[in-house]
Amino acid sequence: MPTPLAPDLASYLDANDSRIHQELFDFLRIPSVSARSEHRADMTRAAEWLAGAMRSAGLSAEILPTGGHPVVLGEWRGAGPRAKTVLIYGHYDVQPAEPLELWTSPPFSPEVRDGRIFARGSVDDKGQLFLHVKAIQAHLATRGTLPVNVILLAEGEEEVGSDNLTAFIERNAARLACDYCVISDSAMFAPGLPSILSSLRGLTYLEIEVEGPGGDLHSGIYGGAVVNPATALARIIASFHDAHWHVAIPGFYDDVREWEPEVLRQMKSLPFDDERFRKEAGAPALDGEDGRSTLERVWSRPTCEVNGLLSGYTGEGAKTVLPARAMAKVSCRLVPDQQPDVITRLVTEHVRRVAPKGVRVVVRELHGGMPWRAELSGPLFDAARRALASAFGREPVIVGEGGSIPVVGDFQRLLHAPVLLIGFGLPGENAHAPNEWMSDENFVKGMRAIAALWEELGRA
Amino acid sequence: MPTPLAPDLASYLDANDSRIHQELFDFLRIPSVSARSEHRADMTRAAEWLAGAMRSAGLSAEILPTGGHPVVLGEWRGAGPRAKTVLIYGHYDVQPAEPLELWTSPPFSPEVRDGRIFARGSVDDKGQLFLHVKAIQAHLATRGTLPVNVILLAEGEEEVGSDNLTAFIERNAARLACDYCVISDSAMFAPGLPSILSSLRGLTYLEIEVEGPGGDLHSGIYGGAVVNPATALARIIASFHDAHWHVAIPGFYDDVREWEPEVLRQMKSLPFDDERFRKEAGAPALDGEDGRSTLERVWSRPTCEVNGLLSGYTGEGAKTVLPARAMAKVSCRLVPDQQPDVITRLVTEHVRRVAPKGVRVVVRELHGGMPWRAELSGPLFDAARRALASAFGREPVIVGEGGSIPVVGDFQRLLHAPVLLIGFGLPGENAHAPNEWMSDENFVKGMRAIAALWEELGRA
Repeated sequence: MPTPLAPDLASYLDANDSRIHQELFDFLRIPSVSARSEHRADMTRAAEWLAGAMRSAGLSAEILPTGGHPVVLGEWRGAGPRAKTVLIYGHYDVQPAEPLELWTSPPFSPEVRDGRIFARGSVDDKGQLFLHVKAIQAHLATRGTLPVNVILLAEGEEEVGSDNLTAFIERNAARLACDYCVISDSAMFAPGLPSILSSLRGLTYLEIEVEGPGGDLHSGIYGGAVVNPATALARIIASFHDAHWHVAIPGFYDDVREWEPEVLRQMKSLPFDDERFRKEAGAPALDGEDGRSTLERVWSRPTCEVNGLLSGYTGEGAKTVLPARAMAKVSCRLVPDQQPDVITRLVTEHVRRVAPKGVRVVVRELHGGMPWRAELSGPLFDAARRALASAFGREPVIVGEGGSIPVVGDFQRLLHAPVLLIGFGLPGENAHAPNEWMSDENFVKGMRAIAALWEELGRA
Repeated sequence: MPTPLAPDLASYLDANDSRIHQELFDFLRIPSVSARSEHRADMTRAAEWLAGAMRSAGLSAEILPTGGHPVVLGEWRGAGPRAKTVLIYGHYDVQPAEPLELWTSPPFSPEVRDGRIFARGSVDDKGQLFLHVKAIQAHLATRGTLPVNVILLAEGEEEVGSDNLTAFIERNAARLACDYCVISDSAMFAPGLPSILSSLRGLTYLEIEVEGPGGDLHSGIYGGAVVNPATALARIIASFHDAHWHVAIPGFYDDVREWEPEVLRQMKSLPFDDERFRKEAGAPALDGEDGRSTLERVWSRPTCEVNGLLSGYTGEGAKTVLPARAMAKVSCRLVPDQQPDVITRLVTEHVRRVAPKGVRVVVRELHGGMPWRAELSGPLFDAARRALASAFGREPVIVGEGGSIPVVGDFQRLLHAPVLLIGFGLPGENAHAPNEWMSDENFVKGMRAIAALWEELGRA
């Protein structure tokens, strides 16, 4: 039987539930879109708001500059030098909200419907970051102390590749020294099923530009004799996969390490329903690399996906242009031991090789991140299992994750600390799409699980 | 030696040159973009302006409703029932001007630079339509009469497929009855080289929509297991051609009639320079269907071109979405005896056949037009040869045209009158692109050539 959360902590969170929600909604109202220069002031506002919330919780907090958006660093070191130190990482920036017309309620006006908190950033990652602030506050407000020292590191560039975070960690390695890292920026396997992450996919994100004529041409006067950049781009993209959805870029799979048989076996025992997944995606049918299950395809196999296409005339009606250029945003999800820079080079070489005569191609790398695989043992892992069991009333499952959190590899490498990923999102949460939501139940239980985690770690 | 233009007509056009230009510029200032509903009032304004200009020239003029933008119909029948009647066709609508940032001077603020009149619609087709109005005015103002009866039919939907014109012609066939049709909506082969058109390509313009998931998805969480509509669209487009730029849609070439050897021989004798054409296009290299010259590719061979692509995230920076949908605008240029509806069917069947599992495809036909080939003999053709020689000082050449004027086939079919296409555009005029221009010399000589044409036809 799991140990229930200590009554004082539980009472505190219950009694303050309404205020905590109001504060979260204030945080979600700030459109902290890191990708857009017009939201620069909102990014500053979000950082200041978060620093204020950390101080209210009893942490010291500083806004520290980087080469881009600042880091908000909260600290509480009252447990003393002999206690363990935990670094919690999250991010206060969010994805762009476009296309706005597809949101049922406005992206920066949080609204609870059917037990879901709808807002851009609700689950990715403001809600999950904020529940950590509140779990700390529960300890400090009721007991004036915590069983562990905590460092809360919130960055503002996760959605644009965390370009400045590695340098920040390197520069502040002494201050950030810790025994464990904890991150909540992922999803549970299913409602009611607490989950510990065993893997993340990495990423390399590219922009491919195909340049043809000097300007858009009349497709009648020139069509047939001038190579069409949009057609050329389509041929390039079509060459990325074979007929079995196997990536056909030479060398792409060379560094892929297959999963351990034990993890694969656990994966196969999960209550996964292809048809439910298909419905969540709203897709007519599922399909992907031949000979792999859906979970293998999204957790353990690399991809090459088009994220955006733009060329020529895309407005109302018909315009007979032969476009001057065509652009694709393309990203590859990577698995251990693929390296983003190696994959970028392979894709770039492939694109140059297959581009037809008559066009120029330019490939730009926008950002990248390393794939990651966890160690599934030790005191941190055991404490997390017990804390999740206490909050959710059942043992957690071990799951993979198709998304990327580029900094996880950096934490492990630079701080020499094991990383624990326990997320409270859910399938279908629209993390990077319109109508993003976070389960309100998971937000509430997440605070309890993290409050319990500090207790468990204090006992370890 | 060509007969020079009668001195009274020449003097009139010389003396009024500045006023004629100012009037043309007034016409060009009206942004009569038929494709965009926000320009509806401008379309009305352009029709009214044109009717006023026809009346000033001595024609009666009416604005006649259609199912879409109205037709402006000018008439002068003073030559009497025994004289020939000529129907002149042109259009007062223009292409959208986007992308605006690529224009050196604003599209609807005409400006003359280096002997070129820059404005959207300058050459396609307002300038060429207006020179007909002025050629008629030269006759009526100096002599009070014309050797032929004239009907000036200007439509407002040429750039969106002339959807309502066929019905208009059918409905008004008695009123539009004529001996000859004359159209100036095409280009001369080269500066100083007057040209008579022997062929036009037809068109079918389609929009292909590939629908995948119900909304944009996180490319990490779903990527690999849900078919990407943008990738699917790229594969569909890539299947349109083989490696030799031969259209690979089954049945596509079945109805293509090869050109007569004599016309091909004339085509090969034209002073055509691939390198100059490449420079005009601003393309890194020319390429197209194997085994065909550039002029064959654009005049005598059908194409399948992408006019626009749109999918997913296309803004600044990186957004890792798996797009819900992907759209392509695709048009096929057609040659005799291809039929637009047959080609639409073949493309639609092909798209459905090659679309991967996991996406839905929808193909919509936006508009179409028949290809056309001229009869290169008879009184109209002979009069045109002499009139062009008189204005330009040399015999015209016989040329093809890669573009489409969908109504040409309709005139021939419904009015049983031969159609003469003499255009005064020039290569590189950017007809459907930013920085459209018309040669001022051609505008001026065009008025003279048309004034001479009525004299020649009167003698025929």
